[in-house]
Amino acid sequence: MINLGSPPPALPDGGLRVVALGGIGEVGRNMTVFEHAGRLLVVDCGVLFPEDDQPGVDLILPDFRAIENRLDDIDALVLTHGHEDHIGAVPFLLKLRPDVPVVGSRFTLALLAAKCREHRQTPNLVEISDGEQRAFGPFELEFFAVNHSIPDAVAVAIRTSAGLVLHTGDIKLDQLPLDGRLTDLAGFSRLGDEGVDLFLVDSTNAEVPGFVAPEREIGPVLENVIRRASQRVIVACFASHVHRVQQVLDVAVQYRRRVALVGRSMVRNMGIAAELGFLHVPDGLFVDLDEAMRLPEDEVLFVSTGSQGEPLSALSRMARGEHRQISIRAGDTIVLASSLIPGNENAVFGVVNGLSRLGATVVHQGNAKVHVSGHSPAGELLFLYNAVRPSNVMPVHGEWRHLRANAALAVATGVAEDHVVIAEDGVVVDLVDGKAAISGRVEVGHVYVDGLSVGDVGESTLSDRLVLGEGGFIAITVAVDSTTGRAVAPPTLSGRGFSDDPKALDQAISLVEMELSRTEAEGITDSHRIAQAVRRVVGRWVAETYRRRPMIVPTIIPV
Amino acid sequence: MINLGSPPPALPDGGLRVVALGGIGEVGRNMTVFEHAGRLLVVDCGVLFPEDDQPGVDLILPDFRAIENRLDDIDALVLTHGHEDHIGAVPFLLKLRPDVPVVGSRFTLALLAAKCREHRQTPNLVEISDGEQRAFGPFELEFFAVNHSIPDAVAVAIRTSAGLVLHTGDIKLDQLPLDGRLTDLAGFSRLGDEGVDLFLVDSTNAEVPGFVAPEREIGPVLENVIRRASQRVIVACFASHVHRVQQVLDVAVQYRRRVALVGRSMVRNMGIAAELGFLHVPDGLFVDLDEAMRLPEDEVLFVSTGSQGEPLSALSRMARGEHRQISIRAGDTIVLASSLIPGNENAVFGVVNGLSRLGATVVHQGNAKVHVSGHSPAGELLFLYNAVRPSNVMPVHGEWRHLRANAALAVATGVAEDHVVIAEDGVVVDLVDGKAAISGRVEVGHVYVDGLSVGDVGESTLSDRLVLGEGGFIAITVAVDSTTGRAVAPPTLSGRGFSDDPKALDQAISLVEMELSRTEAEGITDSHRIAQAVRRVVGRWVAETYRRRPMIVPTIIPV
Repeated sequence: MINLGSPPPALPDGGLRVVALGGIGEVGRNMTVFEHAGRLLVVDCGVLFPEDDQPGVDLILPDFRAIENRLDDIDALVLTHGHEDHIGAVPFLLKLRPDVPVVGSRFTLALLAAKCREHRQTPNLVEISDGEQRAFGPFELEFFAVNHSIPDAVAVAIRTSAGLVLHTGDIKLDQLPLDGRLTDLAGFSRLGDEGVDLFLVDSTNAEVPGFVAPEREIGPVLENVIRRASQRVIVACFASHVHRVQQVLDVAVQYRRRVALVGRSMVRNMGIAAELGFLHVPDGLFVDLDEAMRLPEDEVLFVSTGSQGEPLSALSRMARGEHRQISIRAGDTIVLASSLIPGNENAVFGVVNGLSRLGATVVHQGNAKVHVSGHSPAGELLFLYNAVRPSNVMPVHGEWRHLRANAALAVATGVAEDHVVIAEDGVVVDLVDGKAAISGRVEVGHVYVDGLSVGDVGESTLSDRLVLGEGGFIAITVAVDSTTGRAVAPPTLSGRGFSDDPKALDQAISLVEMELSRTEAEGITDSHRIAQAVRRVVGRWVAETYRRRPMIVPTIIPV
Repeated sequence: MINLGSPPPALPDGGLRVVALGGIGEVGRNMTVFEHAGRLLVVDCGVLFPEDDQPGVDLILPDFRAIENRLDDIDALVLTHGHEDHIGAVPFLLKLRPDVPVVGSRFTLALLAAKCREHRQTPNLVEISDGEQRAFGPFELEFFAVNHSIPDAVAVAIRTSAGLVLHTGDIKLDQLPLDGRLTDLAGFSRLGDEGVDLFLVDSTNAEVPGFVAPEREIGPVLENVIRRASQRVIVACFASHVHRVQQVLDVAVQYRRRVALVGRSMVRNMGIAAELGFLHVPDGLFVDLDEAMRLPEDEVLFVSTGSQGEPLSALSRMARGEHRQISIRAGDTIVLASSLIPGNENAVFGVVNGLSRLGATVVHQGNAKVHVSGHSPAGELLFLYNAVRPSNVMPVHGEWRHLRANAALAVATGVAEDHVVIAEDGVVVDLVDGKAAISGRVEVGHVYVDGLSVGDVGESTLSDRLVLGEGGFIAITVAVDSTTGRAVAPPTLSGRGFSDDPKALDQAISLVEMELSRTEAEGITDSHRIAQAVRRVVGRWVAETYRRRPMIVPTIIPV
């Protein structure tokens, strides 16, 4: 999907330009580029996971075209936290500019470094701490502690001669955070006193009224579930949710269960978290999977990935009875301590149903309070606006419904309506003389990763996949004498994804033969024209006979 | 998906057999067959809508195989209400047995008759009213008023010498129903006094705690939204939800807006509802779409289908800016007064985002109380169990997670655990001497309707579609001399749904040529073996080069 529009005029001297190459108008692949005095600052560089109309795609990247000719102008890439939708595309940017300073907190950079190792990259890491100030080119940055569903998240303030900008990253306001590290509302208020010219605010939960319950309220719910379990317990959650896992571990210790981590990303991330002191693991608590299988069933607990119903995950395989080691038995307890990301409902409920069918007790968001969101809903966003008191607001991180809801909250707190700028990916916003306004648009499309290659799968391939996935195809192959146009053998018709009936296409063969006689009689020898004629005949036949629309693929072989 | 298992032994004399051919273990295509004294009674005959792993399928029917040799034994087909998942497959059953008595309430039969007219069928309709008793063969039926999200729903009691059975159909317990027609809990209690041997209970909302708010609480919310609208208002809801539409019409009258119905099923069903007196429409309220377009924007209201984000619906077209007549403008108000059926989230939010992007105010379940469910949640189900006090319980209408939750509620009210029978589609339950128990299993698969034909699309076609939809295909065509095995022309390779890059397959051509030289050298002339060899080479190449798995389709033409 390419957005067309006018490119913006040159940025006035002393102005600040903001453009999202991903993450606004969608949830994922967050990447915002700031320009000032001829230099660039990038905040986040994440991936987006594909939807139903993007079949076969593994990942979607931000569109780097707007900066690909200015890579040397980038003074820093700031990462607000370690979630995939904020760091997942960094290796692809590093391929273009390997030495860009990558700025982030300790845990964020540790996750990034692990990712880069898999890509055989050694990024230029610049670790910052809460409250630190640091300049990169003309951008004077200040970092603020932020609470989110991963440790060590930060918001970033950007000071330039154009004014003061604050970008929340992903944020919520848990007032009793498990690690005691509060979102630095006091710091935001101090910035507000100073005067924030542009406030970029997480929109993800702007439609949701009220407040998020504290993360620590999950613990007693888990305790209540695990206390009553007399057999195996499996808790699935996001592989980066250190505080959720911490609470599971605490309950495991309490009920004398040892813990096995299941899933590559869970093992990797919790290893990093434990090593850096973000996860506290008593000695001897962890066992490997083989050892766990030898323990009595009421002395073990598995912490697993697969909470979104990913078909290849360990949990999905257990639900289908296909896991190599773990067989679910009636009476086992499975907890999905996670959100239900829109679009994953069928997959997740498929897992819940599979486990239920096997007789397991399945505890999930829908029947117990085993999850709280990582994003501020409306009530908390109001606190943020009132602390920061910004002159201009730009809702980020969200689909249009979220952006509009967030904009309405800004206006409700007193921000002037024409100072709230909704600018989806590619829309250029300039902050000049204290006023933010749209100045144009750059092209931003979807960049697809499918297997090993990036960018060769585009909209035309996807549209073919959608047609093929709905109706399969009918292939017609004819060898034709290239001088006379006569078919030298009977045409073959074969369908895949069209019908289970082996005789389904029989009727069409004679129609193709008749059409070939006609083209021959008319002296048509051009393969392309013969192919068109044959495609038309079969397409019409299948529409009338079956009312279906398979792809019709003629191949004419001149011999 | 074929379930294998042992077929049941002969039903003991005086026993009652129950088997679901659809609707248990899934939400949709409800169809339950009762057998007694050599005769059959069928309750409901609906369709199921396909999921992601059933691409291109229009509808899924119950599997009639278990009864197809006993069609003449069917004494009646009882329809509990007029929703598609209860009546949608009736025309397919009538094709097999056109004269079967179809028993239902007035509104249910009117909807069925309209459906049958589209199939050019004239069913043998038997209208019953609330409280009526009527025998069909050895089945003595009694009908009870039931409240649901469509008017005129009924539950059915079935008396035979095997005992008394009560089937709720879809049910909830709105204590202030808009039409004053309460679920007949008093009647259920009377049956309970008599002694209910087997209770089949709607499981859809068994996982949801509490009670459903009365339907009439939606009215004031709609009023509050529509009162403030200064431009066009569009309300989307289910085309059979007469009471929801009634409340919309009442508010339209109050604010002097005339009403246009949008969507074929909305026009048809509301026409029937108005004609039969289920919908009260003041004279002159309805206008057609053309007339509506000429009215001032604040004097019109559209009631539309498309609340589930169906891509071809009027509302989806409006959201994409593609509707022929209605263009959404900033300031318009759209209300989605409907549930969000799991699996439809992306489609529905796509519509919400499209409308938001155009500047419309979008009111939906997520931000206002504009929908209540049609199914009893846990709190109401407890009332049902305590009224009926059944000896045996069989949860129906639901996925495994719903069935388990419903079973737990039955047990909580005192039903003995071994008298609660979870029997998914095809599992045979016999009620003998007052005890219900599983006696075997009959084959029940998915019967797919795709376009005009039924049953020719099966699991192998669907699995091909899934492969094609994920990765497209690479076709390799070679004309080969059938005596020497030599290729008479260079092989052609072409991909669809594989890559946008026209050179993507160039590398593979020489590999295919080398392989053809090898097969020729080995004296291989058999087309099938040549095809296999070529497929293997290209498959390996594409996996290594792209790490993708397109379908590889070789065609060898012997000339």
